[in-house]
Amino acid sequence: MRIYDIITKKRDGFALTKPEIDYFVNGFTKGEIPDYQISALLMAIYFSGMNEEETLNLTMAMANSGDLLDLTKIAGRKVDKHSTGGVGDKTTLVIAPMVASVGIPVAKMSGRGLGHTGGTIDKLESIPGFSVSLSEEKFIDNVNRINIAVVGQTANLAPADKKLYALRDVTATVDNMSLIASSIMSKKLASGADAIVLDVKTGSGAFMQNEEDAICLARQMVAIGTGAGKDTVAVVTNMDEPLGNAVGNALEIHEVIDALNENGPKDLMEVSYVLGAFMLKLAGKTDTLEEGIDILQAAIENGSAKSKFKEFIEAQGGDSDILMNPDLLPKAGIIMDVIADTDGFVSSIDAKSIGKASLVLGGGRETKESDIDYSVGVVLKKKVADRVERGDCIAIIHANDKEQLKIAKNLVREAYRFSKTPVPKQKLIKWVVTKEGITKI
Amino acid sequence: MRIYDIITKKRDGFALTKPEIDYFVNGFTKGEIPDYQISALLMAIYFSGMNEEETLNLTMAMANSGDLLDLTKIAGRKVDKHSTGGVGDKTTLVIAPMVASVGIPVAKMSGRGLGHTGGTIDKLESIPGFSVSLSEEKFIDNVNRINIAVVGQTANLAPADKKLYALRDVTATVDNMSLIASSIMSKKLASGADAIVLDVKTGSGAFMQNEEDAICLARQMVAIGTGAGKDTVAVVTNMDEPLGNAVGNALEIHEVIDALNENGPKDLMEVSYVLGAFMLKLAGKTDTLEEGIDILQAAIENGSAKSKFKEFIEAQGGDSDILMNPDLLPKAGIIMDVIADTDGFVSSIDAKSIGKASLVLGGGRETKESDIDYSVGVVLKKKVADRVERGDCIAIIHANDKEQLKIAKNLVREAYRFSKTPVPKQKLIKWVVTKEGITKI
Repeated sequence: MRIYDIITKKRDGFALTKPEIDYFVNGFTKGEIPDYQISALLMAIYFSGMNEEETLNLTMAMANSGDLLDLTKIAGRKVDKHSTGGVGDKTTLVIAPMVASVGIPVAKMSGRGLGHTGGTIDKLESIPGFSVSLSEEKFIDNVNRINIAVVGQTANLAPADKKLYALRDVTATVDNMSLIASSIMSKKLASGADAIVLDVKTGSGAFMQNEEDAICLARQMVAIGTGAGKDTVAVVTNMDEPLGNAVGNALEIHEVIDALNENGPKDLMEVSYVLGAFMLKLAGKTDTLEEGIDILQAAIENGSAKSKFKEFIEAQGGDSDILMNPDLLPKAGIIMDVIADTDGFVSSIDAKSIGKASLVLGGGRETKESDIDYSVGVVLKKKVADRVERGDCIAIIHANDKEQLKIAKNLVREAYRFSKTPVPKQKLIKWVVTKEGITKI
Repeated sequence: MRIYDIITKKRDGFALTKPEIDYFVNGFTKGEIPDYQISALLMAIYFSGMNEEETLNLTMAMANSGDLLDLTKIAGRKVDKHSTGGVGDKTTLVIAPMVASVGIPVAKMSGRGLGHTGGTIDKLESIPGFSVSLSEEKFIDNVNRINIAVVGQTANLAPADKKLYALRDVTATVDNMSLIASSIMSKKLASGADAIVLDVKTGSGAFMQNEEDAICLARQMVAIGTGAGKDTVAVVTNMDEPLGNAVGNALEIHEVIDALNENGPKDLMEVSYVLGAFMLKLAGKTDTLEEGIDILQAAIENGSAKSKFKEFIEAQGGDSDILMNPDLLPKAGIIMDVIADTDGFVSSIDAKSIGKASLVLGGGRETKESDIDYSVGVVLKKKVADRVERGDCIAIIHANDKEQLKIAKNLVREAYRFSKTPVPKQKLIKWVVTKEGITKI
């Protein structure tokens, strides 16, 4: 087999076979095929596309390129949850304790944030003492004992994906649906769950700004998961405005605590209940979505989700006193209101700008090597459809640097758009994609 | 300027500006832009194409990336001639002395052969003592003194093209018309001529097997030459069967001597007269093609072309006694006839197979580093439309190895196709492309 022939075949629009895909993925990962041939192949894939079978084979080859997490030592059906990344998206931290508290094992590997989107691992690390580095033994033991553990991705999880993504990132070959879907799913498949619930974000703050693209990505990921023998559901959700009110690591943990105290923002709770209910369904605990939502609401109301969160924090070395006293979380030195200079209704809040404001404040990573300031961020006081009067506080900025504060304030101000007439609330759950097709709920 | 943005722009189908093209060509040549980004860009160019202006700018950037041959010290209008490469194509060696003998300076850089096509430099080197390595001073002095000099390409001629071609060769991005045209023309522009006559071969033995592709390449090269301020004419000629009868270095020199002795094969003479007459026209010596052909035919008939060839060989250290006694050229040890096993008419001779036969015998290069056996090759005794009787010799193989001979014999036999009914002679000169358009002659 020759890589030249594989490039030519894809360039000319033909589908690659499984042995051909294995050959180039393994050869590249081992350093036997040079990057200049793989980048030409990636650009040929960008133009010629990949069919469902090729995309599945690429995903499997990348998943099998490194360590495969073995979750068989955990009893029960393990359901993973993944979000394509948004602004203020702390659903994993609300869902995981809820689901674990009703008896479903949550054994989760999560990622760090990059650019204007945050990451679950960073949020957890803003809890004093919390560790995301558990040995595989300890990780599995924690799940067997208390039903929940969340760790960072191991260095050798799907290394082929890591290497291919780094090359795509510098050769303008990121924006291809098959490559995006296979990149996400390779890590999910290597993480060992039996079933997967995907949250595909769409809107101004999401990677898939366009709804059709989000549906396409959802379909491709569901096809890959199904093809790999995992029950997979994708929910397409709105990310035109940030999810919930808080954006920034410790601020989002604070909001999670509020949520577990029956005091969460309505949009955050809606997405968390729906995604969590799909997890219960895929775990075989419930037959219908409604049933699952009822169970999860009860777990919030009776305090069992909150108790589970406490156990979870303690099991990973964190200070669970934050639950009673969130002031123990890292706090920023400067807290400043952003004031409305007009009357009206909020017509839109550009999620990407809010994410950028948090990034500028030091709450995110410009590059993979950047340090994070856990205390900073933005808390929105007005969301889309809310009525605003001149002089109202629309958002609060938490900063540690006056220059950064100034830039962030402008970004927040620019993110808000107002209308003189009432604005309808946006639909949050847009589509559900399963192997049977696409539906609304 | 960032190479990432240039890749994205071309990927999305936009035209690159002159500064963008200069940036990537220079950055790559200097080793400042990595090959994996350039290979992605080349694949994007393969799919998105380049317009006329981009192609000209790419050609100029590559021509200017190394040494530019300065021919201004040679009096008169210098006209270069280039062939896209064929089997048995020794026209340069017939044309150069003819044209030089009627007073037009020929200052030519030529290439070596690769694969199944031969190169003028290899053919000249089969002449005992002949040197293709002249200093620039000696090269110019020879042209000023006797109107003719042919040398190999200097190492630093269009190095950007050399580096880009090497990358294209391993990333399946050779087959793009703009890239092919700019590669050829960059070397022509760097070679310093005032005008250029191009012989674009089409047919089974040519790089452009398809006639439409050959016309497209001819048009692009004429547009580049014209854009660069050089009068340029391209002649599209047939390469469905080899040109002339001899294929192989010394065997072709022998055929050139025959041609200068008024004994050349008809097809070789026709192409040589037409290309040579275009050179005279572009040099300003004649107004019409017919006038030029008359002048060149006279140069053959009165022996002045032959005398010029003698002067040329002697000026570059070669043994000019080969003109009187071609047996002084390298000779193969085994000479064997290929015999017809059927009656009929030759309907086709696959030029590529004949070229491969010569390659197998040791007369060509598998790779750039291969050594050449100057003595071997194939001499066709029957060409397309010729009547053949069972037992006739259709070709003679000159070999030095029995195993190679066996393979070559099969290739020659397979190259010939016969018909029971008479076959029309193929048209040799198919099209003439100038900046004014495309015509037949």
